[in-house]
Amino acid sequence: MIYITRKELFCAAHKVARKDWTDEKNKEVFGKCSNPNWHGHNYTMWVTVKGEINPETGFVANLSEISDIIKREILDKVDHKNLDMDVDFMTGKISSTETLAVECWKQLEGPINALGCFLHSVKLQETEKNFVEYFG
Amino acid sequence: MIYITRKELFCAAHKVARKDWTDEKNKEVFGKCSNPNWHGHNYTMWVTVKGEINPETGFVANLSEISDIIKREILDKVDHKNLDMDVDFMTGKISSTETLAVECWKQLEGPINALGCFLHSVKLQETEKNFVEYFG
Amino acid sequence: MIYITRKELFCAAHKVARKDWTDEKNKEVFGKCSNPNWHGHNYTMWVTVKGEINPETGFVANLSEISDIIKREILDKVDHKNLDMDVDFMTGKISSTETLAVECWKQLEGPINALGCFLHSVKLQETEKNFVEYFG
Amino acid sequence: MIYITRKELFCAAHKVARKDWTDEKNKEVFGKCSNPNWHGHNYTMWVTVKGEINPETGFVANLSEISDIIKREILDKVDHKNLDMDVDFMTGKISSTETLAVECWKQLEGPINALGCFLHSVKLQETEKNFVEYFG
Amino acid sequence: MIYITRKELFCAAHKVARKDWTDEKNKEVFGKCSNPNWHGHNYTMWVTVKGEINPETGFVANLSEISDIIKREILDKVDHKNLDMDVDFMTGKISSTETLAVECWKQLEGPINALGCFLHSVKLQETEKNFVEYFG
Amino acid sequence: MIYITRKELFCAAHKVARKDWTDEKNKEVFGKCSNPNWHGHNYTMWVTVKGEINPETGFVANLSEISDIIKREILDKVDHKNLDMDVDFMTGKISSTETLAVECWKQLEGPINALGCFLHSVKLQETEKNFVEYFG
Repeated sequence: MIYITRKELFCAAHKVARKDWTDEKNKEVFGKCSNPNWHGHNYTMWVTVKGEINPETGFVANLSEISDIIKREILDKVDHKNLDMDVDFMTGKISSTETLAVECWKQLEGPINALGCFLHSVKLQETEKNFVEYFG
Repeated sequence: MIYITRKELFCAAHKVARKDWTDEKNKEVFGKCSNPNWHGHNYTMWVTVKGEINPETGFVANLSEISDIIKREILDKVDHKNLDMDVDFMTGKISSTETLAVECWKQLEGPINALGCFLHSVKLQETEKNFVEYFG
Repeated sequence: MIYITRKELFCAAHKVARKDWTDEKNKEVFGKCSNPNWHGHNYTMWVTVKGEINPETGFVANLSEISDIIKREILDKVDHKNLDMDVDFMTGKISSTETLAVECWKQLEGPINALGCFLHSVKLQETEKNFVEYFG
Repeated sequence: MIYITRKELFCAAHKVARKDWTDEKNKEVFGKCSNPNWHGHNYTMWVTVKGEINPETGFVANLSEISDIIKREILDKVDHKNLDMDVDFMTGKISSTETLAVECWKQLEGPINALGCFLHSVKLQETEKNFVEYFG
Repeated sequence: MIYITRKELFCAAHKVARKDWTDEKNKEVFGKCSNPNWHGHNYTMWVTVKGEINPETGFVANLSEISDIIKREILDKVDHKNLDMDVDFMTGKISSTETLAVECWKQLEGPINALGCFLHSVKLQETEKNFVEYFG
Repeated sequence: MIYITRKELFCAAHKVARKDWTDEKNKEVFGKCSNPNWHGHNYTMWVTVKGEINPETGFVANLSEISDIIKREILDKVDHKNLDMDVDFMTGKISSTETLAVECWKQLEGPINALGCFLHSVKLQETEKNFVEYFG
């Protein structure tokens, strides 16, 4: 088994807030992340896939196929978008980094495993001080 | 003369679009940066100050005073905010990185020069592939 | 289970040397790290916590509470200090990166687990070429 | 158990291509990585070793000994070389990042374990968007 | 005047060697950079353009047009190529970082200035320890 | 004219304090940087040299000669040392980043200019948030 990781970037707006709470309650719980008019980030995402090396190619999987899946399932939907208004797979969810990582995993797991390898982890960084990792 | 630079970070939402243009016209000119529901970035800002070394302290200026000015004049106004809706000094302006750098310069020049040194440049990075520098 | 990591920085002096050895013996074993008049580093520390996502907030834990614990238990004690002279939890210990990581773990484990999540790892980087990780 | 990691860099030429395939077939499968006249990279390698802390020194292992092993077994053979023409341990192999990581592991495992600690992983980064990890 | 910079990456093989010298002479002058079978790098290039802000768009120039020029004039010719064998504008030249930066400037100056702004500098990094800057 | 830069690292202890002031006065003016028992940093230094390209070699100067000068004049004296106690060229000076950059310039200017090129700048970074630049 060997692990291969692809790093991708996207830029998005969001706020961390519950629609069923007042702005005051959201501010109390989520602080400046609940700013009603949104804020945003340059997100960095690392998608790690594991599998055995194909002796004919020396590859676990074709990275350009993995990259295409990440582009189609995630980047085309979130890059230069509002996570809370524009993204189908985040509808009705709080756009915390934790939840976003879990939902990205769900988007990627099927298509990546169909390549004959296994999705191992999604790591998502919101600012240079914070990141989350999800292993399914 | 010696040059000293302070690096700061902020996270903000914005879009690059003219209110007097249609969404279609904005998309044609500004591409995905004009997404109507906003997107956002982790901005990095470098503020460079020049001056002579004070022989008593070895400093050009007290970096904590420079940091306080950047916090009061810029960060408190833009961090976790929407550049187009929440920021007084950006009202009525297009939030391109160029314009944002020029307006940050205007915010900083007076207070920094009042310390007895000189604002030399504002460098502003929107994504890891793009940055601007303004020298007044 | 999801993993969330907070990155923090501190600047400290130290030397790697045993008080019961001569300077010559320390130099032989620890090389330039044993310089009698100290040297120092910008340390980077990553604290990783694991837990389940709280469905009400989308968070594993409130990162500002984790950040407060790291500040109170570690940063206030080590930042701009001498690890061998000023830090209570390092008294009588060799300030190797390994030992420092283990002692930081001991400082953090109780307060973090009291939040309802679990301390997973402490990663500590001394220079850009070396880091250690401790999982308890 | 504690984990300690050493980061090293090397610069090398290579191509990803099978000698028993035509240039056209190689281009179809491996894309621009199969350029017949080679291309190259700044590779970054992280070697992670695990073990118990020696109470006399505070160290898992002497990092300068680990560094010497990496230099002798890997860097002296690959740095400023052609991975496909100049490197004994890559002879007859496809120089994919996956295969290179596995072969580096084989070079390091014996000498590092002879120090009384254990090789845990070899992580190898080819470009800032891709890396692999091998755990033996 | 404001300055805007675009960062791009490419991977290439090369050697620093004169064809009219022996391998021994090349090794004496250029060291390990003269390895006869090539070596390679991940090059990072920063292209800086200066101009006035267009009040209608807030831009000095359309970054996607600058990016297209860099791609057409430089990246398509050098990425995943051998600088000494595959690149028309390097024919007969020593592929030192200095010379490569000057030749990239010559490729870019005409097309960028035709956009109504001015090429200010080309910065080229070969390894994380070395870079050059050329201002025309 | 072309500019070439070499990046080097060193680790050192220091404090920012005047010996003719009390600890209280030093703390009032210099804050936590005046900790009596020292603190320390991983310093990053960029030395920029300018000159014309030698047509025979394609180089402004031999980087290994520049690197040797930096090692002999600076790194051997400051790396893993106490800037205030161990370094001849800092004796009696306040080890602010500004003063350290100026003194490094004085160490380098003669030997580098003797190579037939010109020292252009010394940039010195103390933490990832602060750096200074000196141009002589």
